[in-house]
Amino acid sequence: MKYTRVSVGGRAVWGRVGEEDIELLSESPLEPSLGGEPTVIGTVPRATATWLPVVVPPVFYAVGMNYRRHIEHAAKLGNPAAVIPDHPEVGYRANSALTGHRSPIVKPAGVEGRFEAEPELVAVIGRTLRHATYEEARKSVFGWTIGNDVSARTWQHQDRTFWRSKNSDTFKPMGPWIETDVDALAQTTTLRVNGEVRASFPTGDMVFDPFDYIVEITKHITMQPGDVLWMGAESTCQIEAGDVVDVEISGIGVLSNPVHPEGNHV
Amino acid sequence: MKYTRVSVGGRAVWGRVGEEDIELLSESPLEPSLGGEPTVIGTVPRATATWLPVVVPPVFYAVGMNYRRHIEHAAKLGNPAAVIPDHPEVGYRANSALTGHRSPIVKPAGVEGRFEAEPELVAVIGRTLRHATYEEARKSVFGWTIGNDVSARTWQHQDRTFWRSKNSDTFKPMGPWIETDVDALAQTTTLRVNGEVRASFPTGDMVFDPFDYIVEITKHITMQPGDVLWMGAESTCQIEAGDVVDVEISGIGVLSNPVHPEGNHV
Repeated sequence: MKYTRVSVGGRAVWGRVGEEDIELLSESPLEPSLGGEPTVIGTVPRATATWLPVVVPPVFYAVGMNYRRHIEHAAKLGNPAAVIPDHPEVGYRANSALTGHRSPIVKPAGVEGRFEAEPELVAVIGRTLRHATYEEARKSVFGWTIGNDVSARTWQHQDRTFWRSKNSDTFKPMGPWIETDVDALAQTTTLRVNGEVRASFPTGDMVFDPFDYIVEITKHITMQPGDVLWMGAESTCQIEAGDVVDVEISGIGVLSNPVHPEGNHV
Repeated sequence: MKYTRVSVGGRAVWGRVGEEDIELLSESPLEPSLGGEPTVIGTVPRATATWLPVVVPPVFYAVGMNYRRHIEHAAKLGNPAAVIPDHPEVGYRANSALTGHRSPIVKPAGVEGRFEAEPELVAVIGRTLRHATYEEARKSVFGWTIGNDVSARTWQHQDRTFWRSKNSDTFKPMGPWIETDVDALAQTTTLRVNGEVRASFPTGDMVFDPFDYIVEITKHITMQPGDVLWMGAESTCQIEAGDVVDVEISGIGVLSNPVHPEGNHV
């Protein structure tokens, strides 16, 4: 099943995505209030839908260094933090940076140098859990979606935190939907700019998998339905205003966003 | 006015705090749906109320190094990041760590060494803003509350991120209420353990004030009603299971939490 959220008359509504249409749902499939399935309250055509970030997570977890080749690449570029981790250690992003499928990534006027897309698998948590075993962690994932961890490298290297380098408005496209029926770690991640393949890697080729992270996080922290866990990228590429960036994960879908220049403001 | 949230029959309800009672409100005073004041739908006595974190923020901002004496102290203890900042640079905490006034701070079994309370002023944002001027930033603050940025220093120094050192369950008490009518920067912050004063400093003695931070953040990020901005601490102190920790900011109130040891789990 494919679940998403769309904007209908300015309101965020959950939907179930079919071939042509999106069925609008009475409530979130993540926490149906009566323990049953949400009911269908209408439909909108896929072609004209306004896609929202698939969920507004209670907590937005993100894994940094999780693919060997990415770490080795960053180390070569002189990043002292680029060391293959010996245990799963998570970080955070901010919900204010989220945007939906097809919405623009806005490149800030002040960004110079490397401005990059990072194609990532995202686990969406479906239950409350603490002190999870690996098997409980596996069962806790409601479904999988796609994230683009857009990063302004100059700011990233300049600042003490990732606040503006990774969390400026529109820097976190997430979508187009949550796929509940896929072996996510057996897929291929492909990054395209204007239709041209810029990176392709086995999605599951991670140092630690999502379930390792969930086991580690829940030693100290209660995870909740709707929490998202972005799993890092093996390869990245430069993007510019005017480009269209697609992140495809086979078996899930394609997250596509145009890149716009920042407009003037008063 | 003093606003808070309490648990009523397991449900989170906004309240307006009086001398004896809390008036329960029909909706959030941060975003009243009709542009008016929320209506009163009941009362609960203050003495028996179950206090919740005053708000679940869309984004939880936190300032690290913002008091000169704290930075100098951390530098003396060998923290290489302890440098007086030349511009306002914000970080984040996670909502999963929030807890309310009077709820326990749970000290994890695995924490050794320095386990500390950090008494902080918190600004609660009341409107949507981007590219704010200093004056707009001043007007955007709905009110002020108190935070205790509980920190496990061994984990903080050991880990690449603050995930468990500052975001383990219950590590972020926030309350007891939002005070809308106070000159927050003209107050005194006092930290007490079991009634004994362990630290006291001028609340407003900051390197950069909350409005400086809001101006800087909103150059890149849209802030929203309910966002919180924790302003850092000048002094900290050790806390242990069995203690009761009070953070008082004159003109606002007292945030009080017992410290419990972690229980066994299966």
